[in-house]
Amino acid sequence: MIDREAKMQQTFKIGVMASTRGSDLQGILEAQASGKLTQVEVAMVLTNKADAPVIERCHQHHLSCQFVDPTAFATREEFDRAVAAIFDKLGVELILLIGYMRILSPWFVQHFQSRIINVHPSLLPAFGGGMDLNVHQAILDAGVKVTGCTLHFVDEGTDSGPIIWQKAIPVEHDETVESLKDKVQQLEVEGFVAVLEAWAEGRIVINNNIVFLKDA
Amino acid sequence: MIDREAKMQQTFKIGVMASTRGSDLQGILEAQASGKLTQVEVAMVLTNKADAPVIERCHQHHLSCQFVDPTAFATREEFDRAVAAIFDKLGVELILLIGYMRILSPWFVQHFQSRIINVHPSLLPAFGGGMDLNVHQAILDAGVKVTGCTLHFVDEGTDSGPIIWQKAIPVEHDETVESLKDKVQQLEVEGFVAVLEAWAEGRIVINNNIVFLKDA
Repeated sequence: MIDREAKMQQTFKIGVMASTRGSDLQGILEAQASGKLTQVEVAMVLTNKADAPVIERCHQHHLSCQFVDPTAFATREEFDRAVAAIFDKLGVELILLIGYMRILSPWFVQHFQSRIINVHPSLLPAFGGGMDLNVHQAILDAGVKVTGCTLHFVDEGTDSGPIIWQKAIPVEHDETVESLKDKVQQLEVEGFVAVLEAWAEGRIVINNNIVFLKDA
Repeated sequence: MIDREAKMQQTFKIGVMASTRGSDLQGILEAQASGKLTQVEVAMVLTNKADAPVIERCHQHHLSCQFVDPTAFATREEFDRAVAAIFDKLGVELILLIGYMRILSPWFVQHFQSRIINVHPSLLPAFGGGMDLNVHQAILDAGVKVTGCTLHFVDEGTDSGPIIWQKAIPVEHDETVESLKDKVQQLEVEGFVAVLEAWAEGRIVINNNIVFLKDA
């Protein structure tokens, strides 16, 4: 893990990996536009989908964006090494997975250990295990009264890495997949802003695989 | 399910089953002492443990309490039929499991369908599956940042019945099993009070196995 405490007040570069709309990226950019996250520079957005809407979003915001074609690589690790080379060359310190629908190789996870953050639209460990696409329907079907969102470091399991940040919201009785998605989306952005601020200020502590954010 | 709407404003009797301290019972009695739950009458507390501290608690509060000895019955169902006979004779409408450490027979669950409420010290489905005794340690070990409590109707599975009420609290970084237990204990009482009030007022709706509480 990078010792951010020693680097406080310096700008740091983040890389984003996204397969679809990358909606949380929008929230991060809006937070920056409102004067937050001044130390964060979105250095590169990579996608594994040639037609991902996040590409257009990047163009609108004049962000560097690149499609890396998975079919051009023989193995998952070769693809991941190409991605890592792009990030490393730019000096990317932290990688955010924002709707990245592709399994990472153990090599990649190891290479960026405690430097890859994934977001999951539930209170893990509940409704984890790779059900991202149908998670809100599963939540409604289960009749739970509370859900939320989780940001966690990525390890070699699915939705299993050390949890950094969680926040809960009530599930109302007239809730729909769409209403839940909207609310959790807002939480996701709130989480990314909180965690990026904490990273910038060296307030993320990992102890025996348990993460906590020190108070600002 | 009893049609409480037709019975609104009438007193109704609850039975309690407890194996240990029955701490939530104390909270319910305190709520009554403060003027809440005026329609609720705790008709009988049954325990399967001869030395359960809940027995002394009942004596202090002049509540009817009875130890039913499991070793006096050949099968789980025979024990449960004896328990049911006691509750039925008193006209108990709703049964609360408050730290009741014994599996219920399918017969009992069927007999009191949608009339048995269990409390679990986590946000189910997370940290369910019968781990009541060590649930807070498991929560701390998992490094989750949010936990809470669940009240649910009992079905034939473990911690699997329809969820009635849930509420979340943050897990602080200096949290201990004891601090968590205290906080969740308070939530449990809050949940029992909310659900008993809703029951009294006919505000509990079950629809396709999903429960919700109508607004008061």
